[in-house]
Amino acid sequence: MRIRGLSVKQYLDRLQGFHGRAAPGAVAGGFMVELAYRRLPQGRLCDAVSETWSCLPDAIQLLTPCTVGNGWLRIVDTGRFALVIYDKETGRGARVALDLDRLAAWPAVKTWALKLKPKAEQDETAILAELLKAETRLYKVEKVKVERSSLVKKKKIFTCPSCGESFRGLRRGKCSYCVGKASFYRVEEKS
Amino acid sequence: MRIRGLSVKQYLDRLQGFHGRAAPGAVAGGFMVELAYRRLPQGRLCDAVSETWSCLPDAIQLLTPCTVGNGWLRIVDTGRFALVIYDKETGRGARVALDLDRLAAWPAVKTWALKLKPKAEQDETAILAELLKAETRLYKVEKVKVERSSLVKKKKIFTCPSCGESFRGLRRGKCSYCVGKASFYRVEEKS
Repeated sequence: MRIRGLSVKQYLDRLQGFHGRAAPGAVAGGFMVELAYRRLPQGRLCDAVSETWSCLPDAIQLLTPCTVGNGWLRIVDTGRFALVIYDKETGRGARVALDLDRLAAWPAVKTWALKLKPKAEQDETAILAELLKAETRLYKVEKVKVERSSLVKKKKIFTCPSCGESFRGLRRGKCSYCVGKASFYRVEEKS
Repeated sequence: MRIRGLSVKQYLDRLQGFHGRAAPGAVAGGFMVELAYRRLPQGRLCDAVSETWSCLPDAIQLLTPCTVGNGWLRIVDTGRFALVIYDKETGRGARVALDLDRLAAWPAVKTWALKLKPKAEQDETAILAELLKAETRLYKVEKVKVERSSLVKKKKIFTCPSCGESFRGLRRGKCSYCVGKASFYRVEEKS
């Protein structure tokens, strides 16, 4: 079994370097990306969506040309453990998701995926062993068509009259930090 | 000038491999990450926030241990060209943002940052030359304290009664795809 041309060992090493460790979600993500590509026509430019912030974005960023910062990977947070890779031009592609119906034979993965025990009580070695043994068998694949217009909104650059910084947004006015919608920090000192 | 221990050339090569090219925003991001780290105490574990989806997340992912998938990098989309790197434990850190007041001497960067011309009419060679010459001089730095509680919401795993998939969310019920809030694709065929 190879993952996008890499041996599983090579993929786990790359995860270590980028993700920090071979976490179960990121390991699963490798098989999911491989499954998606098997359904895609070869030699086409693709975009990707991760339906979760957790782990899957890193599998996609390591195994495809799609990154968050280059805009080819988007996060649409349905919270489901699923990813979509699709042809940039036609929008047609594959959605790969963890399939609960297939988890009965994989008790450690099931405990992890449904969080049947607190994380500290889960057996990560057993989870990883099952994920690696199951390879691509835990996931379902759907042929999908992505509506690009639902993902990409045309934005312009404005200058916020409150903080004086430029921002990319849909309309003129204050930026979302200054209107209090994204106040995740307070300033202690300027320089 | 080094960027997190790399020569500028080494950083640009890494961008090529990960981001696809040395795009202006990602080049600027390298200097911004370097600036942030100069204000942080050494040897501490840090988290990061990018205030834009564009380019900066990749600079952060290449130059720090923080990635989208490992949860150490979060995107809080104010649309401003800014990033925050902060001590995981204390929440104290540095916010680095493009400073419009400093752009007068850098006309190509100004045209790019404020999109004074359509992208196709911008001179990317000139933008990159200015960004590389200006090094860290285009950005302001603020000492900030991040409110972690505003970034991290405690979620649980539920199973959606409509699609039958598990999802990480705040409450029981249908997932956001099935309630129509994240309907970015339609299924053409299941397998």
